[in-house]
Amino acid sequence: MIIDIPEQSDFSIHNLPFGIFSSQGRAPRAGIAVGEHILDLAALAELDVFAFNTAVLEKDTLNDFIALGKEITTKVRTDVQQWLQDNNSVLAGNPQLFVTQKEARMHLPVSIGDYTDFYSSMEHATNVGKMFRDPENALLPNWKHIPVGYHGRASSIVVSGTPFHRPKGQTLPNGADQPVFGPSQRLDFELEMGFITGKANPLGSSIDTDHAEEHIFGMVLLNDWSARDIQKWEYVPLGPFLAKNFVSHISPWIVTLEALEPFRTQGPEQDPEVLPYLRYQGARNYDIALEVGIAPDGAAETTVCRSNFKFMYWNMAQQLAHHSVNGCNVQIGDLYGSGTISGKEADSYGSMLELAWMGTKPLTMADGSQRKFIADGDTVTLRGFAQKEGKRVGFGEASAKVLPAQP
Amino acid sequence: MIIDIPEQSDFSIHNLPFGIFSSQGRAPRAGIAVGEHILDLAALAELDVFAFNTAVLEKDTLNDFIALGKEITTKVRTDVQQWLQDNNSVLAGNPQLFVTQKEARMHLPVSIGDYTDFYSSMEHATNVGKMFRDPENALLPNWKHIPVGYHGRASSIVVSGTPFHRPKGQTLPNGADQPVFGPSQRLDFELEMGFITGKANPLGSSIDTDHAEEHIFGMVLLNDWSARDIQKWEYVPLGPFLAKNFVSHISPWIVTLEALEPFRTQGPEQDPEVLPYLRYQGARNYDIALEVGIAPDGAAETTVCRSNFKFMYWNMAQQLAHHSVNGCNVQIGDLYGSGTISGKEADSYGSMLELAWMGTKPLTMADGSQRKFIADGDTVTLRGFAQKEGKRVGFGEASAKVLPAQP
Repeated sequence: MIIDIPEQSDFSIHNLPFGIFSSQGRAPRAGIAVGEHILDLAALAELDVFAFNTAVLEKDTLNDFIALGKEITTKVRTDVQQWLQDNNSVLAGNPQLFVTQKEARMHLPVSIGDYTDFYSSMEHATNVGKMFRDPENALLPNWKHIPVGYHGRASSIVVSGTPFHRPKGQTLPNGADQPVFGPSQRLDFELEMGFITGKANPLGSSIDTDHAEEHIFGMVLLNDWSARDIQKWEYVPLGPFLAKNFVSHISPWIVTLEALEPFRTQGPEQDPEVLPYLRYQGARNYDIALEVGIAPDGAAETTVCRSNFKFMYWNMAQQLAHHSVNGCNVQIGDLYGSGTISGKEADSYGSMLELAWMGTKPLTMADGSQRKFIADGDTVTLRGFAQKEGKRVGFGEASAKVLPAQP
Repeated sequence: MIIDIPEQSDFSIHNLPFGIFSSQGRAPRAGIAVGEHILDLAALAELDVFAFNTAVLEKDTLNDFIALGKEITTKVRTDVQQWLQDNNSVLAGNPQLFVTQKEARMHLPVSIGDYTDFYSSMEHATNVGKMFRDPENALLPNWKHIPVGYHGRASSIVVSGTPFHRPKGQTLPNGADQPVFGPSQRLDFELEMGFITGKANPLGSSIDTDHAEEHIFGMVLLNDWSARDIQKWEYVPLGPFLAKNFVSHISPWIVTLEALEPFRTQGPEQDPEVLPYLRYQGARNYDIALEVGIAPDGAAETTVCRSNFKFMYWNMAQQLAHHSVNGCNVQIGDLYGSGTISGKEADSYGSMLELAWMGTKPLTMADGSQRKFIADGDTVTLRGFAQKEGKRVGFGEASAKVLPAQP
């Protein structure tokens, strides 16, 4: 191996995710995470090893690189995989191609055109339905027929590590008949994964489930921060708006679908049977372990949730087929969120709303403090990895610290 | 006057809106509409009349031009206004600077980063509430406290003149307990206006009502096409999704706020009083006459709606202040839709849903055919203009033909 990769690294030889980084005063450019290092693709391109226009590797987003198509992007990844294991390859004797991650700053990997968020975990939708609607009929009538989704805000999606201020907004206090304005009292995380599209379809055309994965470049972790009190007052009848669009965080490294291939698994049975355009062949879920940690300001982190992406009722192929069945066009660099990923167990719920059950079951942190929702100074970190037969493919983290609301 | 402008032209000397056009085999570039012509700004720039980097005028969107700021964009407009009236100006003797609109093709004027749609006409929200909820309590409790809005799809926004196919999707037929898939049976237009932002705010900051107009570059007509049957089945609990994102049309010319200045007018009284962050000074509505025509395939057009932008309960300054009060960042080229603009009179309703009152009062076209919703082959055209003391400032049109659903 050209470079040492720690055994439990998320960024093993089997992963090799793409991202945008800057370091040593140089402008943001494309790289591949390798263990605790980043392979500088723009610098590597200067050695004339690639047979495409490598100007795309010097851009501050991956969109134009991704636009080259999987034939090229996959070859870059498999070439690097091979070179890393070949002591006579172009990577040997060129230590300047590697930057340590600690010395680099990560940037948003793509310019996100549109952001759609689904609501595809049955356990999450059921929990929310139990809390806010009818416990006996927690799932709404449409939920098992359509992968329910809505459009979110693209401009406020930032990369892991970007702190933000607690949002302010309008809420209706319990029992009040007039709304008030102030900092959200119910700031929450949502444990999600997102996929980034790498192939467009023209407006008016559709993508079927058999071809959907050709349009998916890769995946990231997504924290879809939510202000529950703002959401409760604003969301009828047109859905969440200011409760969500103040910020969302994604992990910086896009793990390709190819790297996730060994971790495919069968999804839950769908009953009732879905309409023909939503039916699919094969194993379309992925076994990706997920967890969420909360670190109070200056204190140790407590893991509050352990979930798995394989729990999703609706898979990505179905989401994309549904999204485009009316002719809606997907573009390169779009982000599609899974929705909060909750499992059956109470410690697998993907939000504080569910974990602390609307504030009725506060969580106790390692430092003894309690949480119904997220407090100022808390750092919330999402992590995820797939592991099987000695292969580990991880996502790193989507982490952010909550600062107090601005005066 | 350098060039003849018909008396009733939308594009009078008082207007001078910006757009992107192509003609004569030349690539898309910036222009200003003048009567029945387009002033080619990229060609004009070659005569060295502008004191900024005019490469922005040769791009296929106006984003970079708008990003120069109002100090520059306003000066371009007022300079052109003066030159058009000066027979010794740079525009004289240079007929190659003018292209007839008939010979040009118009393009989307901006690359739209995010698209938000509000719901700010009280008459529209009341009509919808009467039809779908409680006629006695048609407005939801939050409606008079917040300019309700939601995120829409940016990728499927196209310029006037782009035909599209009737969308297909899932619907739940009346009385059925299982959904079906097929072409929408309730395709509708929505008469809206949209504003395009020309100045960004950093994520985490807010725009107050006093400064909101500095962030608004100009306005367009917007047809927010809607599939009512798809919407009815999908919209709970996260809002409209596939019912809206198959296509939206905007008019090609961005009419600047400066051109609309003479048409300011006081908005409706807001009762109850809104929270402090939504209060505003001065006249923030605009008196803009709007109409919608439907032309069946090969037949004459029938005007089905006459409305006015001044009816809006919530104004643009309030919409932008609300949108950013939680720190959400606005970017240059975002589109913000007003929501359907309905007046008090039954012929001023801005959608077929309201005009034909859920199909109970079909409209009769000039050719004798009847409409509950929009039929295949129909061309729907939105038009709008402000007029006062001999000054006319118009928007042209947002027009599109509906093709049958694809097989």
